[in-house]
Amino acid sequence: MKILNKRQILEAFDADATTLLLKEGFIAYSKRQVQQPPVQHFLFEQAAGDCCIKSAWLEGDEQFVLKVSSGFYRNPAQGLASNQGLMMAFSAQTGEPQALLLDEGWLTALRTALAGRIVAELCAPTEIPAIGIVGCGMQALLQLQQLKPLTACREVWVWGRNESALQAYRHSAEAEGFRVHTTQDAAELAAHCRLIITTTPSREPILRATDIRPGTHITAVGADSHGKQELESGLVARADVLLADSVSQCTEYGEIAMAYRQGLLASIPLVELGTVLAQGKKVRSDPEQITLADLTGLAIQDVQIVKGILARL
Amino acid sequence: MKILNKRQILEAFDADATTLLLKEGFIAYSKRQVQQPPVQHFLFEQAAGDCCIKSAWLEGDEQFVLKVSSGFYRNPAQGLASNQGLMMAFSAQTGEPQALLLDEGWLTALRTALAGRIVAELCAPTEIPAIGIVGCGMQALLQLQQLKPLTACREVWVWGRNESALQAYRHSAEAEGFRVHTTQDAAELAAHCRLIITTTPSREPILRATDIRPGTHITAVGADSHGKQELESGLVARADVLLADSVSQCTEYGEIAMAYRQGLLASIPLVELGTVLAQGKKVRSDPEQITLADLTGLAIQDVQIVKGILARL
Repeated sequence: MKILNKRQILEAFDADATTLLLKEGFIAYSKRQVQQPPVQHFLFEQAAGDCCIKSAWLEGDEQFVLKVSSGFYRNPAQGLASNQGLMMAFSAQTGEPQALLLDEGWLTALRTALAGRIVAELCAPTEIPAIGIVGCGMQALLQLQQLKPLTACREVWVWGRNESALQAYRHSAEAEGFRVHTTQDAAELAAHCRLIITTTPSREPILRATDIRPGTHITAVGADSHGKQELESGLVARADVLLADSVSQCTEYGEIAMAYRQGLLASIPLVELGTVLAQGKKVRSDPEQITLADLTGLAIQDVQIVKGILARL
Repeated sequence: MKILNKRQILEAFDADATTLLLKEGFIAYSKRQVQQPPVQHFLFEQAAGDCCIKSAWLEGDEQFVLKVSSGFYRNPAQGLASNQGLMMAFSAQTGEPQALLLDEGWLTALRTALAGRIVAELCAPTEIPAIGIVGCGMQALLQLQQLKPLTACREVWVWGRNESALQAYRHSAEAEGFRVHTTQDAAELAAHCRLIITTTPSREPILRATDIRPGTHITAVGADSHGKQELESGLVARADVLLADSVSQCTEYGEIAMAYRQGLLASIPLVELGTVLAQGKKVRSDPEQITLADLTGLAIQDVQIVKGILARL
């Protein structure tokens, strides 16, 4: 079994190649060519942690992939990253373990950021006066980096609860060539931005229905398990089109789930990312539409990013 | 992260200590003190393989455990074991990986055999003229080995489809001190045996309702996913008491599931292993009863055996 550490993994990572693999993966998922059992979730209440275990096999592939990713939100206080994790590849011919990727959560972070890039390509308005990033952790920065090839906009508003985290984000985003505005008022961010990415593990809504202007696209990546929510359900219900990485996952948990259960979404088209990619169309059909994408994270993304890494070793 | 190979793991394994840990684990499971998400299953039809991914956390423990175990039934033709697998322990405080146990499926095999021992202690009749083992693979031998401390019976009948596998089993069981009878007729085995363990990955019933004599206990460990079945559902319905490692798992798949869905079990007591262990009673109350235990395998068993190994390093 190959054992790869974070440095070896990041050296083999290629964003453009992985983006193509991810698109193929989302399409295969929506065509039901992927065996992807329901996600396993843990909640470690006293340690302020959670963990999810995802696995998938793209039928016909030589390997299947398992991923463990966790968020322990008090880790930074002891100098550890909040997000931890690893991925493993196993032979789909013999069951033998083939590779252990000790990525410390980076592959999950990267494939999530690249999914954000894929969604922005399908949904973002043509004119983006400013990008809004809700949250100021690692994912908040990766999403911004991955948007650079898609838009000339270099104006970013970032929302956070903690002033020193906001200043750290400002520093990193400036190094990426952005003009940075920080705020602790999500409504102020929404007033300026037409492309908003929410990246927090919040368990209560940060953005409200009344905050959002017509012509805005929102990608929500933070809510990946029961109880997490970044968007008021009334905001989800205001969307003209909803895009889900997985309709079954997003109606069970994630941003769409609550509004779905409240019966607020009956008249809003809900489309799956892989279906839209297979059709080769854009989601946004009018500059004034509000579009909203809910990314709960799919194991097929893990399969595809691992495939990309192993192919480049 | 500690990485342990099969030799290191088997050296640290202690059957008696693990049996105690497993009993504690079953009890905690039945007391709902275990976070144990639903099992993830894969079916690799063309490769004649399957895989399951189990994980659990005993609330309050310092670690949670993940296990991957697969059966690829054409592996022996290329000199590989059918069962492959590994286990991992992660910190329940920070999410960091702590130990990778490259046990090649042995820990699953051992904890399954020890569960068979625990069940036999609760269910087996006092008088056992012969032990019946259905299947002649690794698990078939481990079950027999683990029964030795429980009974003086050294007479065993073994059923298999393949004559050379039967002869290999005879050789191993004789080395364990048993007098061995082989058969390709399950009814013949059932006629002689009052303690029967079924250990195959069969997808069609091997033992029939009419095969079984009063006073027999059967432990079924082979059917661990949808579609696997060793016992005719009419046989399950003949039991006086049914014991399940997990009522929720066993009514979804495993031996009990089919008879349960057919509505055949309404008048038969169905009890959970951990509940019985907590009560400190035996399952069998009459020498003429037919008792049947369905072991689909619980992630808490993986947690407990890993705990035992790590404690002895």
